Amino acid sequence: MSILFQNVTAVLMDGASTVLSNAFVAVEGGKIASVGAKKPEGVFERVIDGKGGILMPGLVNAHTHVPMTAMRGYGDGHDLHDWLNNFIFPVEAKWDDRAIRACADLGLMEMIASGTTCLCDMYMNTLTIGQAVADAGLSANLGLGAVFFGETFSPEACGDCAKSQELYDAWHGFDNGRILVDGSIHAEYTSKPGVYEWVADFAKSHGLGINVHISETQTEHEECKARHGGLTPIQVMEKYGVLDVRCTAAHCVWTQPEDWAVMAARGVTAVHNPASNLKLGSGVAPIVELMKAGVNVALGTDGVSSNNTTDMFEDMKLAAILQNGVRRDPLALTAQDALRFATVNGAKALGRDTGSIEVGKQADLILLDADALNLIPCHDAANNIAYAAHGCDVKLNMCRGKVIYENGAFLTIDREKTLREVREYAVPMLFKGK
Amino acid sequence: MSILFQNVTAVLMDGASTVLSNAFVAVEGGKIASVGAKKPEGVFERVIDGKGGILMPGLVNAHTHVPMTAMRGYGDGHDLHDWLNNFIFPVEAKWDDRAIRACADLGLMEMIASGTTCLCDMYMNTLTIGQAVADAGLSANLGLGAVFFGETFSPEACGDCAKSQELYDAWHGFDNGRILVDGSIHAEYTSKPGVYEWVADFAKSHGLGINVHISETQTEHEECKARHGGLTPIQVMEKYGVLDVRCTAAHCVWTQPEDWAVMAARGVTAVHNPASNLKLGSGVAPIVELMKAGVNVALGTDGVSSNNTTDMFEDMKLAAILQNGVRRDPLALTAQDALRFATVNGAKALGRDTGSIEVGKQADLILLDADALNLIPCHDAANNIAYAAHGCDVKLNMCRGKVIYENGAFLTIDREKTLREVREYAVPMLFKGK
Repeated sequence: MSILFQNVTAVLMDGASTVLSNAFVAVEGGKIASVGAKKPEGVFERVIDGKGGILMPGLVNAHTHVPMTAMRGYGDGHDLHDWLNNFIFPVEAKWDDRAIRACADLGLMEMIASGTTCLCDMYMNTLTIGQAVADAGLSANLGLGAVFFGETFSPEACGDCAKSQELYDAWHGFDNGRILVDGSIHAEYTSKPGVYEWVADFAKSHGLGINVHISETQTEHEECKARHGGLTPIQVMEKYGVLDVRCTAAHCVWTQPEDWAVMAARGVTAVHNPASNLKLGSGVAPIVELMKAGVNVALGTDGVSSNNTTDMFEDMKLAAILQNGVRRDPLALTAQDALRFATVNGAKALGRDTGSIEVGKQADLILLDADALNLIPCHDAANNIAYAAHGCDVKLNMCRGKVIYENGAFLTIDREKTLREVREYAVPMLFKGK
Repeated sequence: MSILFQNVTAVLMDGASTVLSNAFVAVEGGKIASVGAKKPEGVFERVIDGKGGILMPGLVNAHTHVPMTAMRGYGDGHDLHDWLNNFIFPVEAKWDDRAIRACADLGLMEMIASGTTCLCDMYMNTLTIGQAVADAGLSANLGLGAVFFGETFSPEACGDCAKSQELYDAWHGFDNGRILVDGSIHAEYTSKPGVYEWVADFAKSHGLGINVHISETQTEHEECKARHGGLTPIQVMEKYGVLDVRCTAAHCVWTQPEDWAVMAARGVTAVHNPASNLKLGSGVAPIVELMKAGVNVALGTDGVSSNNTTDMFEDMKLAAILQNGVRRDPLALTAQDALRFATVNGAKALGRDTGSIEVGKQADLILLDADALNLIPCHDAANNIAYAAHGCDVKLNMCRGKVIYENGAFLTIDREKTLREVREYAVPMLFKGK
């Protein structure tokens, strides 16, 4: 289908951070066909008038756990250990595919309505999450976050190895690469060197990336060093080959200068999760230092149980202002920096041809409401996006050239059925007796 | 008019932090007439079915500068001095009443739509702001933030003294106290002791409160001490009688233990503005210490040019998570704490009988959308409000028993006319040649 956006303020996120007023953006065959100030030749099946609103690349949520919508606000206000052991883990032990599907659909709707077009998800029951993403129409890198608490590793002893292979077989490359599978290691502390090596080999042999939690808390970082002769989580991952492929490292709150050098040299992306890191008391990630060291920084919401929303605009604003505040430097990070985290840098992290409005890129686009009160006036589109926009300003979400959300209506997910499934099946089943 | 809310999850914000499921809340004569699990007797002119959504007290934005919507995103990304001198002040020199009215209406609409029912505003052209608030239907404490850069103070030499008196004469007590006038001192560093004393006497003689910026930046705090023989801004205000009345001190980022003791003893409220303080690089206010010292902590968005929205839900979430993150303690602040800042504590700060759902209080109420994706499921209403809700989840805003906003429609402000005035008059006039 060919679609023309006209009368939009196009925030391109190209190398020059171009913003075009009164722009035209044409989409054809799922890709961006033209961008410019003049109306392109040709006949379009649909013309969308943006009424002066902002058209920008869809947001890339580079670290999340989408079905955790089920646990939104459950157990908040307890310390981390208590929260995980007495609230989160007992519920996670009850998951079945029907509940996963309902809660994934809820999470995907929330993301779509707030402007996400591409995500990187790490969770369990990933075959079902694959189906949800396939049906929802957005793009995702999916990983089965491998954990292994056994004594002696073998691929047979670690059920998550077999499940990663199944996930790959079922979903990798689906719909011309709309779904990609990543190798996935939950974290250094929930696993063993055998797992790191197996996932690294799995990713290398299939040409995949890897995602992993890195140095989220100080305890995790220090205990890793004690266990591994002074090596940090990043250094452990490097030792076992995990950094030999495109790798996204979530959190990175406690990474050190030595880690930043390794990450820059090996092309590892740091995924910043500012809301989650603040809420759980993990700390403030050294984002300015990571950037200065040359590390690609992307942005994620983390799971809903530690955020408690998946509104990327909220994390974008937080990313934009948090470094300024804790360093007492109003110029520590700019609106453009935060915008890059949420778009082009996320695309790079996930190995995807998206995140900017340029000819030939995937047509992953969102249109913001020109009449949203919080976007008036618009002296500077990037400033309005980073500091003033809310997810609910998204009027239209297009993934790979297809409109999947418009004016509050979901075109790929049955909203009412999903809410019914969450309320009448998933929540009663998961929280029975609680 | 008598109105009954039924089928709501009522978050009362009473002393016991009660949350009532399937609750009924009746409103009569602008006040809350009953709250309970049983339908009250009597006939109501209107029955509002909340469909299970959250009914809570309207939010109190305890520090803002409402007409600054004009400068949203204008000059962001420049250092504070450059930003103020080359962007904000030159525009402020051009204000006229027509532009103030348009931009105030825009700001009030944004606040109303995101759940604010009461605000404390400090700005200039306050007679016009009074008219805007009067027409909008919400409650406000208005202050003419006095500044004085002259050599020798006299009330005649300081135009802001006469303007404060005019503001008092025109608007104090309007509509049974819906509008109150506060004495207002912009800050220690923009004024002189004569002004502090004059405002203190003005407030005392008329029975008013006072609002003032306190210790927003380290420079301001330290320069004050150098100027005043070691006295901090709070101590200076105490010396000149400003703390003899109900006083709200905005920011308080650099206040010290001695200040907290004074504030607690004198009943001074600290108004936390977390988004503004982060964005401008001012720092992180010592909110936990202020609370421990017994200081009343309220919440404000600050002006739009340093936030850049007036969505109190955003600042509520930031308040709830920021202290946890910078102290690395997930229990440093709870959802309830942040909710209290934004409701009951704000009401106390402004000397108002609102901020909780209790019989006899002003009927300042907001209803959240039961079907907002980001509020599903609802394991704990306070957690959902503090961490997951967005301003756009507000379906209905009632001030003093009158519905002023419902399902996206403004019942007291002409939205289209305001946008036209902002776009066609205020912005061209204020930013001409820029």
